[in-house]
Amino acid sequence: MQNPRNIVIIGGVAGGMSCATRLRRLDEFARITIIEKGPYISSASCGIPYALGGVITDEAKLHVQTVDKIKSWFNVDVMTNTELTSIQRQRKTAVVRDLLSGKDSALPYDKLVLAMGAEAAMPSMKGLDDIASGIFVLQTITDLQNVEKFIAENNCRRAAVIGGGFIGLETVENLRKKGLEVALLEYAPHVFPLLDGDLAVLLDDELRRNQVELKLDARISEIKRSPSSSSNSTLEISLEGCDPVTADLVIVAAGVRPRNTIAKAAGLAVGPTGGITVDNLMRTSDPDVYAVGDMVETHNIVAGRDMPLALAGPANRQGRLVADVIAGRSVQYRGNVGSSVCRVFGKTAGLVGFSTERLDRLGLQYEYVTVHPPHHVAWYPGAEAMTMKLGFEVPGGRLLGLQIVGGEGVDKRVDVVATAMMAGMTAEDLEHLELAYAPPYGAAKDPINMAGFAAGNVLRGDVRIVHAADLVNGGRTDLDQFQVVDVRSVDEYSRGHLRGAVNIPLGELRQRIGELKVDKPVLAYCWVGYRGYVASRILRQGIDTPVFNLDGGFKVVKEEGYTSLQE
Amino acid sequence: MQNPRNIVIIGGVAGGMSCATRLRRLDEFARITIIEKGPYISSASCGIPYALGGVITDEAKLHVQTVDKIKSWFNVDVMTNTELTSIQRQRKTAVVRDLLSGKDSALPYDKLVLAMGAEAAMPSMKGLDDIASGIFVLQTITDLQNVEKFIAENNCRRAAVIGGGFIGLETVENLRKKGLEVALLEYAPHVFPLLDGDLAVLLDDELRRNQVELKLDARISEIKRSPSSSSNSTLEISLEGCDPVTADLVIVAAGVRPRNTIAKAAGLAVGPTGGITVDNLMRTSDPDVYAVGDMVETHNIVAGRDMPLALAGPANRQGRLVADVIAGRSVQYRGNVGSSVCRVFGKTAGLVGFSTERLDRLGLQYEYVTVHPPHHVAWYPGAEAMTMKLGFEVPGGRLLGLQIVGGEGVDKRVDVVATAMMAGMTAEDLEHLELAYAPPYGAAKDPINMAGFAAGNVLRGDVRIVHAADLVNGGRTDLDQFQVVDVRSVDEYSRGHLRGAVNIPLGELRQRIGELKVDKPVLAYCWVGYRGYVASRILRQGIDTPVFNLDGGFKVVKEEGYTSLQE
Repeated sequence: MQNPRNIVIIGGVAGGMSCATRLRRLDEFARITIIEKGPYISSASCGIPYALGGVITDEAKLHVQTVDKIKSWFNVDVMTNTELTSIQRQRKTAVVRDLLSGKDSALPYDKLVLAMGAEAAMPSMKGLDDIASGIFVLQTITDLQNVEKFIAENNCRRAAVIGGGFIGLETVENLRKKGLEVALLEYAPHVFPLLDGDLAVLLDDELRRNQVELKLDARISEIKRSPSSSSNSTLEISLEGCDPVTADLVIVAAGVRPRNTIAKAAGLAVGPTGGITVDNLMRTSDPDVYAVGDMVETHNIVAGRDMPLALAGPANRQGRLVADVIAGRSVQYRGNVGSSVCRVFGKTAGLVGFSTERLDRLGLQYEYVTVHPPHHVAWYPGAEAMTMKLGFEVPGGRLLGLQIVGGEGVDKRVDVVATAMMAGMTAEDLEHLELAYAPPYGAAKDPINMAGFAAGNVLRGDVRIVHAADLVNGGRTDLDQFQVVDVRSVDEYSRGHLRGAVNIPLGELRQRIGELKVDKPVLAYCWVGYRGYVASRILRQGIDTPVFNLDGGFKVVKEEGYTSLQE
Repeated sequence: MQNPRNIVIIGGVAGGMSCATRLRRLDEFARITIIEKGPYISSASCGIPYALGGVITDEAKLHVQTVDKIKSWFNVDVMTNTELTSIQRQRKTAVVRDLLSGKDSALPYDKLVLAMGAEAAMPSMKGLDDIASGIFVLQTITDLQNVEKFIAENNCRRAAVIGGGFIGLETVENLRKKGLEVALLEYAPHVFPLLDGDLAVLLDDELRRNQVELKLDARISEIKRSPSSSSNSTLEISLEGCDPVTADLVIVAAGVRPRNTIAKAAGLAVGPTGGITVDNLMRTSDPDVYAVGDMVETHNIVAGRDMPLALAGPANRQGRLVADVIAGRSVQYRGNVGSSVCRVFGKTAGLVGFSTERLDRLGLQYEYVTVHPPHHVAWYPGAEAMTMKLGFEVPGGRLLGLQIVGGEGVDKRVDVVATAMMAGMTAEDLEHLELAYAPPYGAAKDPINMAGFAAGNVLRGDVRIVHAADLVNGGRTDLDQFQVVDVRSVDEYSRGHLRGAVNIPLGELRQRIGELKVDKPVLAYCWVGYRGYVASRILRQGIDTPVFNLDGGFKVVKEEGYTSLQE
């Protein structure tokens, strides 16, 4: 029997841990060693904001596995408080340092797996290096303990969070739960920058309702000890063009950067975003070195190119796949679609694929539809409205992105569309999905079917749509070029309508069609888009001029930042 | 221009209504007439149990559309209180009767759409015809009003529900909510007969916890006015082999039968279950007559044959499709997978595809795996366990069925697998699904991924499994043929274990492997199946005898009716 192989895995959470345990199950004889920089392994980093907020009351629950159990169940050696310092690829050796003793040692490997994650990106601001305490990131359980200690010892009353992505939003919610005043500073014009601005604005409202001071388009210039005697807070963050924000502590959640320094020093190829380059077996440019998780660029199925994706699910599955590859299994990584979900107080935001802002930057030919279905039948108590934007390729209908802001049931619809995307389904295929229905859970025509119907109608040319975003300044067209018809009731119309709109309730449209001119295209609309669509079908078959429906209806204008179109 | 076509639609809910409104959107000029037997159209029948229970407080909410609105928005003529009496196919005429005046009229059609649904099946029992009042079905709003009136006028305190399928279970829950004592009589050995018995038993417990008197294997022989002076109830239902059940009212929810009498009289082809035969354009054997919904047999994708499916979602989509076909669109019905979900008090039961009992009857070559993941990460508060059984074809892995009993998140997993099934995915494909994760919603390895991993391990031959059902009397094998190894802790073992099991905790297995004999196959097990799987991998690589893992672990034995295997 040949000597057992040495497998060295750098990083003891998510991808690294999945790789180690899977590999042991497949190969009882390999020598498997995990190198972990921190004191713990297999910690549930995703729970850290919730532990801060007291939602998770026992921090011990975040330690999913212990070093002893990993040894006893899986015969995997773990070296904690140990850091990789260099990779000697010619000698197939990883040099690691014991952070407690400072002692270096050289670990020979047959296969090396890098699962080192990403580190918090720090925004550039004057004074950052001068602040001795009070500025934190929230990546590890040690970070959590430091923040909790600081809040308790300094009796902090007010926090500032820099960055309004997943972690920032979860941190804001949990700091509020902990009773602190919170300011959220986001560089982009809206929170959750991966979403379109007109959808993310629905989260802004939720944050403000929960007394979060929201600073969007925030350009931080400087941070310093508070000079103002009128402020009880100890730190002051200066912003370009608006008043400074004061706080007793600052948590930075401004994105992450792949930990690539050592890999680069070892000559491994790195992609344009700084992530390690891997093939579909998760091999780096050195076939004996694998890399997984937040530190790599992987194939994005929608974009058709490699991109970073710092999410726990893909990291875990990539680690598992590397174990399969090392064990000689015939597997390939299939790529990502970017499924994500985030709770923001009482709302849930979800995304799979890309926002239309991202699709624009990717240069894809797409259209999108906006629907506002309740998460279950409206007549069953507790129905919560969701706003869905479904993007798809034209003319083929390939699914490119689903964005949702709502309450209950958002995560379900993201997962259904993620599955459809991975299966190569089109937007029209969503019309045909047979989704489970009972009144507490959905509808005979599920929100996903509704989005599919709306998209299918566009793809088949049964309706032409105009988006509110097309009509505002800088948009593709102008409201004044249309004869605008509000097909809602007189009562609804009287409470606000599109600029220049005439009111012809849907039920009167067939009789009053003669009131419309043929020398100007018609833009019909209602509240959410359905009556407008019915109207546009009547008009398409009854008047010899182009007819459009306002996608998502007047609700988009009222709620998503297009009130300039209203009168 | 040619004369507009006459489209006559029989039935004004679900499929019929979807057909009418879609057809009008596609064709502004057709004459569309809906014939509806009852006084209302487009009523939300699915809400009726919840209206009975007072969950839906305003019955008006169940009237989704009115005759006036259908006329004014869609220019569709509706004849309520009107019943189809015959189809004169040669003359292309539907003869209908006004139920209020008794007057017949003949409606010519170019295309006829039958969307008549199914009627409640009545169990055969002596005395049924002699009971003048107190026995109800619960299909229509009129039925609901009759039940409510009867309960109020007779001050009913105790109800019996015959049939423990979707409607029966929803009715039981809502009668309890209304404050009545409830007995549930189910002919099968377990409620929700579409599920496997060992999964449905988890619902039995929930029903009993909610003070429902459960009579399974119930053979009803007779119903009569209560002769017993000791009973305050007015009806007595005699059961073979056990005490009679008394009640003030009886609601029958014992399945449905397609309304096929008129179609059969008109010579339309009917399938073996009594449903109208249709092709993939929903055409009956007469190409000018379509049929949809509960009255037809449609292609079941999993079984590869036509079967009935009485569910609202497919009915609606079939109606919509018929409109497309009549309007000349190129579409085909893709068939069903049978996605369904049902709430039973605090539990949710879901199904897509078939139970293993049904797969046996269909003669498919399959295997299944049982997993018990929490609906979101265990360390986030509120995690609810679910029990999932995933059936798949061997050796190919084609998905054949997912059954789940749990709480939160059951509906999501049913929908994800329904989508995967419609996309033709395999059980192994579920390993790779990228599902959205944040602590309140799921896990980095979602329950669907977990089921996929378990199934994949079986399909790839990495683990051989034995089911508890295989080991009981009448099962495929015998516990005594194995050397049974409980790999849980000493403490867990001491609280009950499989008959004849020795206890070797997983962490000691590598050292104690010599205690096992090579002349007898090993059956390893733990609580939910994971440690047993790890143990079976260690043993497979360390001992020269066949090794098996107990699918789903000892939890299946304890909770799913296999306690005879315990000591």
